[in-house]
Amino acid sequence: MRTQVGIIGAGPAGLLLSHLLHLRGIDSVVLETRTREQIESTIRAGVLEQGTMDLLTETGLGERMKAEGALHHGFELAFEGKRRRIDLTGLTGHAITVYAQHEVIKDLVAARVAAGAELRFGVSDTSVHGIDTDKPSIRYRHEGAEHELQCDFVIGCDGSQGVSRQAIPQALRKDFERVYPFGWFGILCEGPPSSDELIYARHERGFALISTRSPNVQRMYFQCDPKDSVDNWSDDRIWAELHARADSHDGQKIIDGKIFQKNIVGMRSFVSTTMQHGRLFLAGDAAHIVPPTGAKGMNLAVADVNVLSRALDAFYKENRTDLLDRYSETALKRIWRAEHFSYWMTSMMHRIEGASAFEQQLQVAELEYVTTSRTAATVLAENYVGISGAQMQAHL
Amino acid sequence: MRTQVGIIGAGPAGLLLSHLLHLRGIDSVVLETRTREQIESTIRAGVLEQGTMDLLTETGLGERMKAEGALHHGFELAFEGKRRRIDLTGLTGHAITVYAQHEVIKDLVAARVAAGAELRFGVSDTSVHGIDTDKPSIRYRHEGAEHELQCDFVIGCDGSQGVSRQAIPQALRKDFERVYPFGWFGILCEGPPSSDELIYARHERGFALISTRSPNVQRMYFQCDPKDSVDNWSDDRIWAELHARADSHDGQKIIDGKIFQKNIVGMRSFVSTTMQHGRLFLAGDAAHIVPPTGAKGMNLAVADVNVLSRALDAFYKENRTDLLDRYSETALKRIWRAEHFSYWMTSMMHRIEGASAFEQQLQVAELEYVTTSRTAATVLAENYVGISGAQMQAHL
Repeated sequence: MRTQVGIIGAGPAGLLLSHLLHLRGIDSVVLETRTREQIESTIRAGVLEQGTMDLLTETGLGERMKAEGALHHGFELAFEGKRRRIDLTGLTGHAITVYAQHEVIKDLVAARVAAGAELRFGVSDTSVHGIDTDKPSIRYRHEGAEHELQCDFVIGCDGSQGVSRQAIPQALRKDFERVYPFGWFGILCEGPPSSDELIYARHERGFALISTRSPNVQRMYFQCDPKDSVDNWSDDRIWAELHARADSHDGQKIIDGKIFQKNIVGMRSFVSTTMQHGRLFLAGDAAHIVPPTGAKGMNLAVADVNVLSRALDAFYKENRTDLLDRYSETALKRIWRAEHFSYWMTSMMHRIEGASAFEQQLQVAELEYVTTSRTAATVLAENYVGISGAQMQAHL
Repeated sequence: MRTQVGIIGAGPAGLLLSHLLHLRGIDSVVLETRTREQIESTIRAGVLEQGTMDLLTETGLGERMKAEGALHHGFELAFEGKRRRIDLTGLTGHAITVYAQHEVIKDLVAARVAAGAELRFGVSDTSVHGIDTDKPSIRYRHEGAEHELQCDFVIGCDGSQGVSRQAIPQALRKDFERVYPFGWFGILCEGPPSSDELIYARHERGFALISTRSPNVQRMYFQCDPKDSVDNWSDDRIWAELHARADSHDGQKIIDGKIFQKNIVGMRSFVSTTMQHGRLFLAGDAAHIVPPTGAKGMNLAVADVNVLSRALDAFYKENRTDLLDRYSETALKRIWRAEHFSYWMTSMMHRIEGASAFEQQLQVAELEYVTTSRTAATVLAENYVGISGAQMQAHL
């Protein structure tokens, strides 16, 4: 089999890239180890920043997001027993949409299937070949048979544990990593939302995030030991912990619900440079990971493939390679901004084991600052809605 | 001897408070362990923020500062071999003046002496008594004799190692501290300035600051081991280190001079809460220390006594105690802002021993951000010129 662009991985990066290339008249094939049912039901991130919303809307994918997602114009920062609002729209003119990643995946799969795309689920033994030549290929196993996909470019959208990144020689790569000594305990519960907007809470017991999935399903998290087990947490203990961290002193309480899912995720920051080698390009989690605090993971994947689709378009339409050559450099500016923002939000909001009284007080001082200075609040808001990267590039 | 306000310490806080009280018709006596010559020659900070410039000017102390100090409308951030300007005035409408602390001291002493003030230098064995009563006193030894200064209020402006803070019962105080694992190696040299404005340099070898004293005398610093000795550093080695850290790749070099003073200072952050007990109030270094990176030390002392002079005025003129009662709370908001800012600048600019490649790259990402985003640059500029505190209070 032959295509123009071979894409490994049917997460948001791979599927959206295939969609964007299709709109530009470029053929692609997407290979995915999991089944369609699995990718459409894996619970992940849920915040779409302004640029992501715009891109999905402009490319015909915004209908269900607008109907079922929730447009948020701000969020709450809770600390020292009070809640203070960050007015995203007032500060930046932009907003975010709370819409789960697997819903985006469903929309993308539906659009690709409707367009007759070649999506291969359940593949295994994927490997990348010939990326130093102009005839790279991807070999894989599917339904018991060996296959080779010949293409002009291979795009690795196969996540942090995928094979693509490993195809770039170690000597050419420099990896940057930070593993945080805490995780997030996440729950899904049935019940009404506790607040009209998300609540990011800093408490001496640890961080909590009160988020939402729909008017009837809520998503909440609290900082935990990443090695803890969900079995150690009864529903009662979970609610007691969430109330202790996120209720305010003036009587605003979070609303309990019926918990139907519990999970614990670790947190790390990771950047792989370079993001390209020869005819192989990495996008999304294959090249970088952020802790979920800044809600940047899926948005970075979307931004990567947006840059990449333009660069591939310039190659096919105008025989230009300059945009492809600069892909890694272009993407990494935005990625490092998001890495720093995610690290900053994480550091400001989480209980840091061993932190001195001085360091704890600095967290409160910083939260006071970002909730009382318009300039500081704007820094937070710009990064959260995701326009700081664009501003940065415009300035350069 | 009796006065209204007994002030321990003739640094910027004590002398300025005495001056401000005099202008409001309130008597004070200032007691200082060092000699006048010593306080007028001790090399300390050198950046006056906008509010400090304004206060000195409004109270008749601005003449020599304006004539001999240097008004700066921006500074340079140097990193990755380039220099990028923070346009303080363009971003905030305000500026700073580079004018050494001991010059401010000279102006203050001259003004107090001209007004016939009671300044006692060379005192020893100072102790504070009766602060739980409305007749506190200060006992001290001067020229071989024991003295007691009876007063309505005792103001501790005697620095971090002074006796005043210790007079507040330990059980009522909570101290916050961070000692940094690095110091600043400072030099004074004869020669022309290397730049029209200060240069704050982040380099993988460590931080450097290229500052100035006058058109002919320059002040430079570089991050060092706080336990190092100046004897280990020949002039040649110092210049090689400064060039390595602060020269830019496009050929902008710092200018060597004849070094005539070398010293090493440690760096720490410290806040003592509360800043008051009964009739005793602390101001300046007696209550808080910042690392020099944000140039906030003297400015915080000035802001403290400005608040205190108003509170004492309200007490004497209107018999109000509410401003005095809230002094600590009022001052600490600004102090924690400055503590956070100083910590942030320090963390962003210094080599952190043991920092991972990821953490080093975050420093560069943050510097890229504050030098390319107008919003982020404004946060830095506002804090540097010292208006963020005022904004914060206006907002609250």
